[in-house]
Amino acid sequence: MLDVPFLPFCILLGILGLVCVAFVSAWCQYWRGGFAWDGSTQMFNWHPVLMVTGMVVLYGAASLVYRLPASWSGPKLPWKVLHGSLALAAFTLAVLGLVAVFRFHNAHGTPNMYSLHSWLGLATILLFSCQWLAGFSTFLLPWAPAWLRGLYKPVHLFFGSTILLLAVASCVSGINEKLFFSLKDGPAQYKLLPAEAVFANTLGLLILLFGVLVLGALARPSWKRPDADASDSRQ
Amino acid sequence: MLDVPFLPFCILLGILGLVCVAFVSAWCQYWRGGFAWDGSTQMFNWHPVLMVTGMVVLYGAASLVYRLPASWSGPKLPWKVLHGSLALAAFTLAVLGLVAVFRFHNAHGTPNMYSLHSWLGLATILLFSCQWLAGFSTFLLPWAPAWLRGLYKPVHLFFGSTILLLAVASCVSGINEKLFFSLKDGPAQYKLLPAEAVFANTLGLLILLFGVLVLGALARPSWKRPDADASDSRQ
Repeated sequence: MLDVPFLPFCILLGILGLVCVAFVSAWCQYWRGGFAWDGSTQMFNWHPVLMVTGMVVLYGAASLVYRLPASWSGPKLPWKVLHGSLALAAFTLAVLGLVAVFRFHNAHGTPNMYSLHSWLGLATILLFSCQWLAGFSTFLLPWAPAWLRGLYKPVHLFFGSTILLLAVASCVSGINEKLFFSLKDGPAQYKLLPAEAVFANTLGLLILLFGVLVLGALARPSWKRPDADASDSRQ
Repeated sequence: MLDVPFLPFCILLGILGLVCVAFVSAWCQYWRGGFAWDGSTQMFNWHPVLMVTGMVVLYGAASLVYRLPASWSGPKLPWKVLHGSLALAAFTLAVLGLVAVFRFHNAHGTPNMYSLHSWLGLATILLFSCQWLAGFSTFLLPWAPAWLRGLYKPVHLFFGSTILLLAVASCVSGINEKLFFSLKDGPAQYKLLPAEAVFANTLGLLILLFGVLVLGALARPSWKRPDADASDSRQ
């Protein structure tokens, strides 16, 4: 692939992540009536904002910590703490995002957990909770022997990428579903492609672009730590 | 990761792919009224079947051709022809899948290309057409010099995985959308989770599992051809 240095790529990715957060916030503020925490539609609006910010942007940032060349030498613990903290922040936002949609559904007598979007989204967050707990107990707590860390590391990497892929697919199906729910009647029907639909469809494509770039960066051999395949014994 | 040999994995993946095709066909046959090629709802039913079979299962099979140890020695041309032919078959089914949905929309006066699902799906197929043409002209036709093949190969690999990811996200958003469209009234409403909804949601998760396993297999270092990073000069 083109020989792009990691840091400029990372800055562009950070900007793209901020654009995603700005787009989802602007969509919910400008077209969907803004935010509240009271079981109303305004409470639902926290759901897309928290999920995109947590499960896509913060999660993507957490996943790329070990691609920073500065993390390749010196003590590894501060980088582990940064990786784990960013992931924990992403997880916290995701749980709040779940609370937002469940309370909205419950307040309106709408069943939870029936759509493919909801199955996939909840499966993603459950996988993420297992990933975080297993990563914390194996890599951050001091008890795990080197052979266990070595054994678990490729599993952790595989599920790290998988969870981001699932999160992106959840976001795309969720935005699609929300637009069909919200744009039903009159001149602003989804099928007439009003400004809101163009804006939110673009948000979906930006989230996909962000996800693809993060997964591409994770897979790129020249951006991995040179001794990435060695056993994980440095603390 | 666990030391799974490629061939048994490949057989399991093939079974999973067949299960996906069987599920999407059974969904459209049993719950959605079967198949026709006349602009009716039965014509629409070809859309999910052709897309899952082409853009997910056949595409996945095409992408894994060079992971077969038999392809690592001897002349490379037959494997290139197999890879290109499977991809062309996948592309042909995808184009027929597009025809099915466009003719259905046109016959019912429904606009095309307004939902995020449609934007993403069409973008995926356009990317795939570029990928196939670029792959064909660079790797199958004899004119391209080794330096060009070496330069383009990582780009081809990156977009190969990306297109599968986009195809899977398209399928998930499409199944979700179709269920909201079809299960609107009475005791079979989507939100009451009738048998069709459970079945089609499960199909969505199976497609995701298939996609994740193919992407994981493509990324696994020990399943790559030993000289995969060398320039592509063998014919």
